[in-house]
Amino acid sequence: MAASKWWGWGAEGTTATLESRPYLHAYLQRTLGLGDERLAVPDPASIALPPSRTGESDLAAFRPIVGGGNVTATAADRLAHALGKSYRDLMRLRLGRIATAPDVVVFPETEEQVRKVLALCALRGVAVVPFGGGSSVVGGIEVTNPRPHVALDLRKMARVLAVDAISLTATAEAGILGPTLEAELNRRQLTLGHFPQSFEFSTLGGWVASRSAGALSNRYGKIEDLVGGLRLVSPSGTLDLRARPRHAMGPDLLGLAVGSEGTLGVITQATMRVHRSPKSRAYDSLLFRSFADGLAAVREMAQDAAAPAMTYLMDEEETRLLVAASGRSVGLGASFLKVRGVDLAASSLLLLGHEGTAAVVKSSRAHVRSHCKEGVGIGSGPAERYSQERYESPYLRDSFIDHRILVETVETATTWSNVERLHAAAAAAIHGALEAAGTPGIVGCHVSHVYTEGASLYFTFMARQKRGEELAQYDAAKGAAMRAIVDAGGHVSHHHGIGADHVAYFREVVGDASWRLLRDLKRTLDPAGIMNPGKLIAEA
Amino acid sequence: MAASKWWGWGAEGTTATLESRPYLHAYLQRTLGLGDERLAVPDPASIALPPSRTGESDLAAFRPIVGGGNVTATAADRLAHALGKSYRDLMRLRLGRIATAPDVVVFPETEEQVRKVLALCALRGVAVVPFGGGSSVVGGIEVTNPRPHVALDLRKMARVLAVDAISLTATAEAGILGPTLEAELNRRQLTLGHFPQSFEFSTLGGWVASRSAGALSNRYGKIEDLVGGLRLVSPSGTLDLRARPRHAMGPDLLGLAVGSEGTLGVITQATMRVHRSPKSRAYDSLLFRSFADGLAAVREMAQDAAAPAMTYLMDEEETRLLVAASGRSVGLGASFLKVRGVDLAASSLLLLGHEGTAAVVKSSRAHVRSHCKEGVGIGSGPAERYSQERYESPYLRDSFIDHRILVETVETATTWSNVERLHAAAAAAIHGALEAAGTPGIVGCHVSHVYTEGASLYFTFMARQKRGEELAQYDAAKGAAMRAIVDAGGHVSHHHGIGADHVAYFREVVGDASWRLLRDLKRTLDPAGIMNPGKLIAEA
Repeated sequence: MAASKWWGWGAEGTTATLESRPYLHAYLQRTLGLGDERLAVPDPASIALPPSRTGESDLAAFRPIVGGGNVTATAADRLAHALGKSYRDLMRLRLGRIATAPDVVVFPETEEQVRKVLALCALRGVAVVPFGGGSSVVGGIEVTNPRPHVALDLRKMARVLAVDAISLTATAEAGILGPTLEAELNRRQLTLGHFPQSFEFSTLGGWVASRSAGALSNRYGKIEDLVGGLRLVSPSGTLDLRARPRHAMGPDLLGLAVGSEGTLGVITQATMRVHRSPKSRAYDSLLFRSFADGLAAVREMAQDAAAPAMTYLMDEEETRLLVAASGRSVGLGASFLKVRGVDLAASSLLLLGHEGTAAVVKSSRAHVRSHCKEGVGIGSGPAERYSQERYESPYLRDSFIDHRILVETVETATTWSNVERLHAAAAAAIHGALEAAGTPGIVGCHVSHVYTEGASLYFTFMARQKRGEELAQYDAAKGAAMRAIVDAGGHVSHHHGIGADHVAYFREVVGDASWRLLRDLKRTLDPAGIMNPGKLIAEA
Repeated sequence: MAASKWWGWGAEGTTATLESRPYLHAYLQRTLGLGDERLAVPDPASIALPPSRTGESDLAAFRPIVGGGNVTATAADRLAHALGKSYRDLMRLRLGRIATAPDVVVFPETEEQVRKVLALCALRGVAVVPFGGGSSVVGGIEVTNPRPHVALDLRKMARVLAVDAISLTATAEAGILGPTLEAELNRRQLTLGHFPQSFEFSTLGGWVASRSAGALSNRYGKIEDLVGGLRLVSPSGTLDLRARPRHAMGPDLLGLAVGSEGTLGVITQATMRVHRSPKSRAYDSLLFRSFADGLAAVREMAQDAAAPAMTYLMDEEETRLLVAASGRSVGLGASFLKVRGVDLAASSLLLLGHEGTAAVVKSSRAHVRSHCKEGVGIGSGPAERYSQERYESPYLRDSFIDHRILVETVETATTWSNVERLHAAAAAAIHGALEAAGTPGIVGCHVSHVYTEGASLYFTFMARQKRGEELAQYDAAKGAAMRAIVDAGGHVSHHHGIGADHVAYFREVVGDASWRLLRDLKRTLDPAGIMNPGKLIAEA
């Protein structure tokens, strides 16, 4: 495998450029008022990291636990574990503004080594940041606390431990990357069915710790639906939460470990519900007259039976962006659409993917036909292309940054009766913040995970960078988005998590009683407060 | 509404008798070797309850909180709140052996009153047993601790508070009974879809506190799938766990309150995911050559897409009982079945119910046709009759007891790869215990809740009562069943719960680390240890 980029997404040598997308490039130049300036990737040697606070005696203490080759405090390794992959992270890397970094990076190879590392850190008052793929976009792995920090990189714990092909469960170590796990399952005609956009560079443990969601969650479930059991090594002991079908055996402790974001302990392995590899796949794309019409259709699909595996509904602004980027009328002429009452410039595009047995795909498509009568079918192409190309977007983001474009995503979920209100409020707030900065932007939104009672809302916003004030410009827009979302009753996050970036919103939304219970729970499992301090439940 | 029987199931005046089922009666007489003796219901005045330990000063302290009419310490009220509805409970009532009872019964009408009652009880060291319908079959409401006890009967908190017909959610107070809630929803063309066998006499709060399951759980979910949010009044504060679609906002506290069995606090209200009332219903009944064949079919249905709403597969012994009880060949001649390779005396009956929109019912039936090719269809009759008559079984149980029959159910769940092993082990253990007592019995089993990774197993066992040793005979059979289930890796319970009866098995199965975490959690929420002591997490 190629080395990962320290400054951007994915593997060295793989890119996706704005130049190769001339229609999109022209649209963004025109809409955002881009100049010709480019932002270069700096020489990593020029980046000044704060000096490591771990001395030789610390390194010497870790070596007998994990082996000398699994302890490192080089600048390159510390830099590679310093930040996640949010726009704010990537800009700080580009601008060379790295205020903090872990002091040492340790690669355990067994659960016993994890236990010993935690015991040593508790003894020395060293904080531990569990590290999976490093793809957090909410500051989940960043050092935000004055203690010395160990980044505990779990990617050497990456074995598949057991597969039960009768019960459709698979147990794997937490550091396994998406493609490795999926390949192991595919060999047995199985799939986990979990495909977040970070899939290629994120880990099983990271997914579980952050409450991840994949593109096909309507069929296979969000990660909390997929996880049946796990082992959590906390400073006060190891919880063995065995995989079980539904039970009536008291409170659910599994749900405490899921979403704990490294603050309660280290997830070392998980047992997942898997599925048979789909025998059949199909795609449909439909245009609705408005986002509201599209929302009504996907809501009814989700409420009467399951919505298709992939259900991706774009609002008018995101549809406009996609149509402009494709340089064609998404497969059909505007005049034909006009006859059907659809104005391409103000329509809402729904991309659907079905998979499973042939019978499941057939009934899923029939379900669409009976609930999407207001939509105009425009063939399988757009949905299929989106499905194939979605892992390119994070690469493309790096090219956007080259072109001095601010680009970020913010996501939430809410009940159906609140979706349109929240959508309008958040979009207006982001537009307002970008305009106030003198850089009016594009704010698109899509719904990609639907439930009987509500749906996720995923906002993408872009603007010309404000030279010299890039981070302040970003903070204002992101802050406006989060404030609007929280004020409108939305979740702080549907699948990105809390990390360091959302701690204040988290406490506000869950309320004092819940926050205190979580804090007490953390004190029980992590009495010395060494586990990922400053994230999720950030005590002063 | 008619008054409830203090000595048995349901409303005074409603019964179901073995005499009215001559084929079943004859089969049980023959198989169990029943005599003519009957067990009468005693005069309640003859039952000696231990004296109430609450004096006038206690009653006087509760009265200003809930009103004088809502505090009672009469023998009849204490008796009505003393025990649940297990065979062991019903036999102790019949035999007049009531060792403990709550000292006072309090009926709060608001959440604020619940808070004040808890504060008073914490101050005085009085234990609190939250009481819903009183239908626990695992000792969930029984006094097992030397402290004075208040039974906190929630049935005066029974209002529907809000319905969101767009998001399909409904909020109701915890003490609402099944039929009341369902009628309120049906008025709005909605249903909760939760139909446990106790439906008519159990409450929303009780369902949530005990992790209940209904007959249609494959379609609508088990109670933990249906509950979106709730309010839990604990002695250390009130948790307001708002209803939310899936999120990435840290650990799941809702899952701690669900299944807490009154040990962490009082659930005062819950917000539930509801569904549109089904427009269409259909039933199918199939016979398989063996339980193993039937298991393979229902497993594949659950794994490839959802199994039908009701999926009720009986093992050979339960099928034999049903065939004998019906006095006919469940709709088809034995000779016809023989041609199809089915020996009625060794076959496995599968009862299926479909509901939803017409399209959902159609695709559910198509799903059955493609996965049940080994089954012989015998029409809709048996499945439809079962569906209509299932609320009669608990009434019939009282008649069984009249006829001096030991009758009890024990349930569990496990992964598919372990179902047959566990089934054989538990059935053999119960048969063995009944034979060892000199009362060889009938041990039937069915699967009625299926998941991708496993299924529930519900055992019903019957034997002639051993005169004068009824409770010891029962304890030996139940103990043998539980030991076999736990040793074979099964759950302590799939939907009945832990209560007082299963505390030792619970601790054994969840393991020390999980148990201690739950204990610490209880100490956080209930520092004085007043909430339902002796249940679930029973500290010495």
